[in-house]
Amino acid sequence: MQDGLPDFGDIEAAAARIAGEAVVTPLLESAGLNGLTGGRVLVKAECLQRTGSFKFRGAWNLISQLEGAGGVVAYSSGNHAQGVAAAARLKGLPAIIVMPADTPAIKQANTRALGAEIVTYDRASEAREEIAGKIARDKGWVMVPPYEHARIIAGQGTVGLEMARQAAAGGVSLDAVVVGASGGGLTAGIALALEHLSPATALYCAEPEGFDDHRRSLESGKRETNARAVGSICDALLSPSPGEMTFAINQPRLAGGLVATEAQVVRAMRAAFEHVKIVAEPGGAVALAVVLAGAIATKRRNIGVVVSGGNVDAALFCRLTAGD
Amino acid sequence: MQDGLPDFGDIEAAAARIAGEAVVTPLLESAGLNGLTGGRVLVKAECLQRTGSFKFRGAWNLISQLEGAGGVVAYSSGNHAQGVAAAARLKGLPAIIVMPADTPAIKQANTRALGAEIVTYDRASEAREEIAGKIARDKGWVMVPPYEHARIIAGQGTVGLEMARQAAAGGVSLDAVVVGASGGGLTAGIALALEHLSPATALYCAEPEGFDDHRRSLESGKRETNARAVGSICDALLSPSPGEMTFAINQPRLAGGLVATEAQVVRAMRAAFEHVKIVAEPGGAVALAVVLAGAIATKRRNIGVVVSGGNVDAALFCRLTAGD
Repeated sequence: MQDGLPDFGDIEAAAARIAGEAVVTPLLESAGLNGLTGGRVLVKAECLQRTGSFKFRGAWNLISQLEGAGGVVAYSSGNHAQGVAAAARLKGLPAIIVMPADTPAIKQANTRALGAEIVTYDRASEAREEIAGKIARDKGWVMVPPYEHARIIAGQGTVGLEMARQAAAGGVSLDAVVVGASGGGLTAGIALALEHLSPATALYCAEPEGFDDHRRSLESGKRETNARAVGSICDALLSPSPGEMTFAINQPRLAGGLVATEAQVVRAMRAAFEHVKIVAEPGGAVALAVVLAGAIATKRRNIGVVVSGGNVDAALFCRLTAGD
Repeated sequence: MQDGLPDFGDIEAAAARIAGEAVVTPLLESAGLNGLTGGRVLVKAECLQRTGSFKFRGAWNLISQLEGAGGVVAYSSGNHAQGVAAAARLKGLPAIIVMPADTPAIKQANTRALGAEIVTYDRASEAREEIAGKIARDKGWVMVPPYEHARIIAGQGTVGLEMARQAAAGGVSLDAVVVGASGGGLTAGIALALEHLSPATALYCAEPEGFDDHRRSLESGKRETNARAVGSICDALLSPSPGEMTFAINQPRLAGGLVATEAQVVRAMRAAFEHVKIVAEPGGAVALAVVLAGAIATKRRNIGVVVSGGNVDAALFCRLTAGD
């Protein structure tokens, strides 16, 4: 670890730490997605991860190492909440989660079912970091940030470590990997893993239209902020700007940022359902969306795609795909 | 192999044969299903198998061993069709599939996309075995039956072999396993695998209401036939009666047959979507349906459930779950 940033060794250590608790999610291929792209699409199905998204990896990597903590506090649009709640319960610690009031019902219900207490706030007008920080200070509990922490980034990086090893085991050399970005922790972890295990692979992040702070930051060379804080179906991808740590890792390592329209996201959710037989939530489908929309060359190439989460109600899935 | 029936050694050989071609599907657990049952529910997600159902296992176990064949012929309600088509293409053989005319569009399209030729028939009035048999005789091609063949049963048995080993690796002793039955090939293969690897596990088959030929056959001791050939949402589970070979294997080994209503099947499809993040087609959800409906004791028990297929259109999924 240099300058507080994680390195590949931290990812390997995280992999050992989460083994037996996190799911080694499959890297799935389908004739359908291959046919649509003219290449091979290998889907890392993190929707099948414990709590329905990759977030458990980083949460457990951090929380499992806590000694003498009285409890944990986190702020989250939903998936990090469930990851932290599950990890805290596993560690035997109480958890308070600060969540936007407009978080999908399934994410709130699942977080409560995992034993956490929920405090809601208004996404447009209140600062979640402050609310969560005050609770942590008042109680003397540990704050578990969604991405700005070396142990969180290292935990999420195990997704990239597994992808690289699974592809290699299948005799596939990955030409590119695409992953959805919000705060950029998953992207940063994967960047560190691929740099070490598959340095020829081009890594792209994907974002929903109007929330392309990473794409703009990569282009301008400094951390840009989104104009809006709400208004995308991708409720998991609404962080206002790249993190400081995550951007420091991502900036020199990413091949670029790609953007999907909402219609493309919905089409990808449907494609994940029909071709891969997995449930992708809107934010979880954004990487597949840009690939199916032709944002990068796919013909005769091997493309790794992270479907990062599947926490969407059946009713919402059906409402979104009805007009598609 | 005794009396033409497969034994555990044939399943082990099949496992070696399908390695690298079939997906080792994950055994997935969720807080949601555990909460609903009061036990631990371990879902064998065969919807994530190549072609979207377990059928590729048996098809490849048989077809990969063919020498000098000019092509293959099969009759199928859809999933076996896709399994055979994919296996034939992998072996470099042409395939003709005889399919009911009312087969869901996604299964017909996927079978064609895998390079097979489709011949349709009327499920209510025509005998698919005869149509397929005539094509096979006329062309001199090999018939690939859906369940009445030792190599098909042994191939499907690899599902049970993987389940037993995955559960053991996770430190879980399976009290019961539930699997959907149509011709009974998957059930029979799993019965042979569990008898060897997990003899204390009680194996149940599950069927949709009105198509409970296995349940009635297990009770009467002889192969019973369904009154109807059509009229269930579980299009994959409409075989008229248990196979001769499969019943010979299943009769002495099964703990019983369980039945799900259509409403219970739809509820299970939705639960698989929301809690496990996988797509279960109606026939693929019948085992989960009986478990969630309380057909066997689940409290503080470890229940293995096979979700055998996921070939359902998003539109049909949404139509079915809309009223739920």
